[in-house]
Amino acid sequence: MITAGIVGASGYTGRELMRILSRREDVSLRCATAHASAGQRVDAVYPSLAGAVDLTFGDLAGPGLDGLDVVFVALPSGEAMKVVPGLRARVGRVIDLGGDFRLSSPEAYRQYYKREHTATGLIREAVYGLPELNKSRIAAATLVANPGCYPTSALLPLLPPLMEGIIEREGIVIDSLSGVSGAGRSSSLEMSFCEVNESVRAYKVGTHQHIPEIESVLSGACGSPVTASFVPHLIPITRGIYTTIHARLTSPVTEAALYDLYDRFYADAPFVRIKRQIPQIQSVDRTNYCDIGFVLEPRTRQLIVLSVIDNLVKGAAGQAVQNMNIMTGLPEETGLR
Amino acid sequence: MITAGIVGASGYTGRELMRILSRREDVSLRCATAHASAGQRVDAVYPSLAGAVDLTFGDLAGPGLDGLDVVFVALPSGEAMKVVPGLRARVGRVIDLGGDFRLSSPEAYRQYYKREHTATGLIREAVYGLPELNKSRIAAATLVANPGCYPTSALLPLLPPLMEGIIEREGIVIDSLSGVSGAGRSSSLEMSFCEVNESVRAYKVGTHQHIPEIESVLSGACGSPVTASFVPHLIPITRGIYTTIHARLTSPVTEAALYDLYDRFYADAPFVRIKRQIPQIQSVDRTNYCDIGFVLEPRTRQLIVLSVIDNLVKGAAGQAVQNMNIMTGLPEETGLR
Amino acid sequence: MITAGIVGASGYTGRELMRILSRREDVSLRCATAHASAGQRVDAVYPSLAGAVDLTFGDLAGPGLDGLDVVFVALPSGEAMKVVPGLRARVGRVIDLGGDFRLSSPEAYRQYYKREHTATGLIREAVYGLPELNKSRIAAATLVANPGCYPTSALLPLLPPLMEGIIEREGIVIDSLSGVSGAGRSSSLEMSFCEVNESVRAYKVGTHQHIPEIESVLSGACGSPVTASFVPHLIPITRGIYTTIHARLTSPVTEAALYDLYDRFYADAPFVRIKRQIPQIQSVDRTNYCDIGFVLEPRTRQLIVLSVIDNLVKGAAGQAVQNMNIMTGLPEETGLR
Amino acid sequence: MITAGIVGASGYTGRELMRILSRREDVSLRCATAHASAGQRVDAVYPSLAGAVDLTFGDLAGPGLDGLDVVFVALPSGEAMKVVPGLRARVGRVIDLGGDFRLSSPEAYRQYYKREHTATGLIREAVYGLPELNKSRIAAATLVANPGCYPTSALLPLLPPLMEGIIEREGIVIDSLSGVSGAGRSSSLEMSFCEVNESVRAYKVGTHQHIPEIESVLSGACGSPVTASFVPHLIPITRGIYTTIHARLTSPVTEAALYDLYDRFYADAPFVRIKRQIPQIQSVDRTNYCDIGFVLEPRTRQLIVLSVIDNLVKGAAGQAVQNMNIMTGLPEETGLR
Repeated sequence: MITAGIVGASGYTGRELMRILSRREDVSLRCATAHASAGQRVDAVYPSLAGAVDLTFGDLAGPGLDGLDVVFVALPSGEAMKVVPGLRARVGRVIDLGGDFRLSSPEAYRQYYKREHTATGLIREAVYGLPELNKSRIAAATLVANPGCYPTSALLPLLPPLMEGIIEREGIVIDSLSGVSGAGRSSSLEMSFCEVNESVRAYKVGTHQHIPEIESVLSGACGSPVTASFVPHLIPITRGIYTTIHARLTSPVTEAALYDLYDRFYADAPFVRIKRQIPQIQSVDRTNYCDIGFVLEPRTRQLIVLSVIDNLVKGAAGQAVQNMNIMTGLPEETGLR
Repeated sequence: MITAGIVGASGYTGRELMRILSRREDVSLRCATAHASAGQRVDAVYPSLAGAVDLTFGDLAGPGLDGLDVVFVALPSGEAMKVVPGLRARVGRVIDLGGDFRLSSPEAYRQYYKREHTATGLIREAVYGLPELNKSRIAAATLVANPGCYPTSALLPLLPPLMEGIIEREGIVIDSLSGVSGAGRSSSLEMSFCEVNESVRAYKVGTHQHIPEIESVLSGACGSPVTASFVPHLIPITRGIYTTIHARLTSPVTEAALYDLYDRFYADAPFVRIKRQIPQIQSVDRTNYCDIGFVLEPRTRQLIVLSVIDNLVKGAAGQAVQNMNIMTGLPEETGLR
Repeated sequence: MITAGIVGASGYTGRELMRILSRREDVSLRCATAHASAGQRVDAVYPSLAGAVDLTFGDLAGPGLDGLDVVFVALPSGEAMKVVPGLRARVGRVIDLGGDFRLSSPEAYRQYYKREHTATGLIREAVYGLPELNKSRIAAATLVANPGCYPTSALLPLLPPLMEGIIEREGIVIDSLSGVSGAGRSSSLEMSFCEVNESVRAYKVGTHQHIPEIESVLSGACGSPVTASFVPHLIPITRGIYTTIHARLTSPVTEAALYDLYDRFYADAPFVRIKRQIPQIQSVDRTNYCDIGFVLEPRTRQLIVLSVIDNLVKGAAGQAVQNMNIMTGLPEETGLR
Repeated sequence: MITAGIVGASGYTGRELMRILSRREDVSLRCATAHASAGQRVDAVYPSLAGAVDLTFGDLAGPGLDGLDVVFVALPSGEAMKVVPGLRARVGRVIDLGGDFRLSSPEAYRQYYKREHTATGLIREAVYGLPELNKSRIAAATLVANPGCYPTSALLPLLPPLMEGIIEREGIVIDSLSGVSGAGRSSSLEMSFCEVNESVRAYKVGTHQHIPEIESVLSGACGSPVTASFVPHLIPITRGIYTTIHARLTSPVTEAALYDLYDRFYADAPFVRIKRQIPQIQSVDRTNYCDIGFVLEPRTRQLIVLSVIDNLVKGAAGQAVQNMNIMTGLPEETGLR
């Protein structure tokens, strides 16, 4: 029996973690903290969890987390780095779902997150939790930085052709469309129904904090610098990310060769499905899958790759549980089908 | 040329008023005040009005409103009663789009609006601005209380059969579905996209402030007490109200006789359309129409009446402009087709 | 191991059945037939089932169904009664998810379904599959008529106060709002995105085939005639039904007494949750729960009851699996949490 | 008074044309044909036009179109080329809203529209109706090919920097998101509410018929070949196109210089608004505007340009009326504010 806790459990990611973990008989969710909701029952805040989660939101300072095998940190970026150092002394393993431990460079952190990193000593210890890339390192880690939702949707389709040298390492274009839950459970005017419904807007063009995450993971995997232009768009759906990638081919390639490459690359990855058709978001709704499809465009010498994930599952809570499985020696798909 | 102003113009009703008035060549919108947005250009807050409204949000205390022919007050209920008394000395006519002057009873106001009325002297002067009921009184008024969105959608279908004695005066059931813009431009968690999308919830069941408005107007029109049970529901659309009414027939009636009654009752009402089919919200989107349809159910001796309006137009800004037209001696449909 | 099959599996109800059954280790889904899709792989039609259902759509005439323990029939009403008689000789138990075996009166069937019933001999054998009402009869049945989605949402909140004599048996008003999946997987213009989005429409007012189902079940449970007026509305969500019920109280009752009644009535019903707040659709999304709340309105002497279900789960596939569990001697909640 | 007619008026583009034209006092809409709906009143098919359009759908063969000043053809591509040659003898000017006369090359037409062009003689006569590019030629034309919705959204942001040589002519990436009305009023399963809602899908990647339209107009304007990769996506909104463009800078440029270029280029274009913020679809909903914003990304040496239009207005009916205004000597914005 794995004992687990969640810090910052009152947001959508926390709810999704509770939903996934509550279904398992081999995991015991012992504690869920939430600053603003402390003292309220979980099912009062989330009626859908009535009957599934019998907990009251606790406080980080309380003893509820002490000694747990795994603690998920679902705090906003900037908050996690204040909490994780102390937490590591109290629990076995920490999986941080925010951005604080994803970048190896404190300078990049400062530039994109607009604040100074205050736990730089832990940056090197943290393993980037993309199981399809780092499985063995995750298995040995006690601190995992769970990837961002956009990076997950961009890295999985880009890694095979980039590492194989099939596409150029610069000039990559990534346009992503995200459901609104990606912005968290928030009460801003911008995320109110009337402002989002029947509309679309791009945001943080050229400045999004997921840019250095994407570029540094790709560069690390390729062993040389990769640059990519990334534009996120907010669209009126609750869940899901659609990512469309354009990259220039280094030399002509056949469709069959590419399918072969992708199929081999992800032969042992239970949550990546290489599709022979254009992916759509509905196919991965509430699942931990990333579906990938592609089109070769000889006219422009481009490879167009398209991917879909559920931002709250493969883009957050599901991937975190996948990491927990790996860290605790379980098959990575346990409880995620 | 009618000179006009808007107090509290930064909400959705204010925007809709600006949109409607800016199209007219016989109206000059001179001033739009907005406490929180004072000093900002209107088209910075509402990019869709770029090129149409060349104004900067002003302050209520400034001289911009002085001497205007008509001022629309689009403040939240409770705010208008603080402002309207002073405003009447400065301008020709006031049309209040909130709830402060709709109820003739200060006691009912206290009970349903949960506060004391502070301008009771004006309650008797205010004319309830439902043109299809009160046209001549509106023409003579200098203070009009523009009806609520739900009451507009319920009163228009109920007045003919009730005043004709075809349905019983008690046991009336009104179930309404409203788009989210009815809640105003707000940043509450409850109105955030993810909380509203793919969901429905009823609210203020039995306690909504439009209950006494509906009952008192119906009672006044019938000359004896009418009671109705009203349940509003929030649904994931931006604009529109769908109202379904159930009432018991006092005696058998034919469909033909009912159509005849409705057609005659609204023969001179340019914005009420009696339909031979079930209404749908799309038909009235961004129009000042109220579409009404009905079904007789002999099995249960009930009359079922269904109506649709755009809550921001016939339910708010459009009806206010209709009232302005009547108050200033213009054909009531001017600028509203 | 229960062996199971689905006839008419290519619609949304069929997909939901496959989704629910594929998660179970104690059920083996052996056959899924679909006339138009016969020969196609299930995961080609429904990419979301890739990896979960490894079947090709078969044909009803093939041997795939022979000898199975339970067969779900998810055909349109009118088709099931042609198929079920022959099917019963081939399989152990049949659960029909359409309307053909829900009404005990062939006359009512003719009136509301607009066709002659051709398997009247089976009507008496079929047990109405509302587990909260008929659990022991379901356990003994070999043919179950799974309730309609609207009736499920109306019967569960109405049964306790009606059977207890707290509300009147006539004058009941039921207004329901349904997501579009209730209309099935169809390519009609009326269900196209642009016609449904940002709109609402009532339909089949006074003529819907669920009216006699609701009235006959309520009348049977009360032992005397119950009449109800029912208006279904189509709203722009994919899943979910919101039902608002108005009924006249026979005599005054306290809120506490009513909660007590409901709590007792459903004490052994694992999928009915009596809420102390107004229900919302999101709380039951993709679950087999029916959430019920109510408001007493002394002013109008009415009881207002509100319920929510997921129309594809408790309103169709989930309830069918609940019935399968009962018919095969399993705990009714098996595989449905 | 301009006399006007519409061929193929029962689709969404036809409805939008009727909505726009019916507001004008200087245009008399005399005839609307629709094959499948012939004989039905327009307001029976479109209740929202009740009171605005007093016409019955006619037949193309009838005399209703003879002698009209302007006829809009809103038929599917492939149908228009059968009809336009004969129509030109009967009416003064023809504006075709489909794709049949947009490409100057019959070979490109065959490749992308998958059929042979049968009116090649008219291709050279037709003027491409993008007013911001071809105003004087449109003024003299009797046959105008109204641009596609996607091309309108891509050409307006691309023309200034391409013609000025600021961006490279190859490697351009265009990712567009479109509302569902762009697919027309159709009853396909793919466009049904449940298949579109809460999902996104790309389609016709690398094969969309708007690719040669975009490339040929850009190449013509620049005087040398331009290639672009274009990926359209279907998203769950009714109206609107969001286009995100990535292009490589030929040499460094300042933001100020770019704003200056755009502002000058569109100084006389009443429907192009150059924004200092990221555009959003809501800002142009039901308007004829194209809003354009951009971001310079020095890190990747890219220019990212973003544009929004309402696909049924600037992307179809509104632009067609703009063309009609120009062809008949009126100010181009007449009736479009």
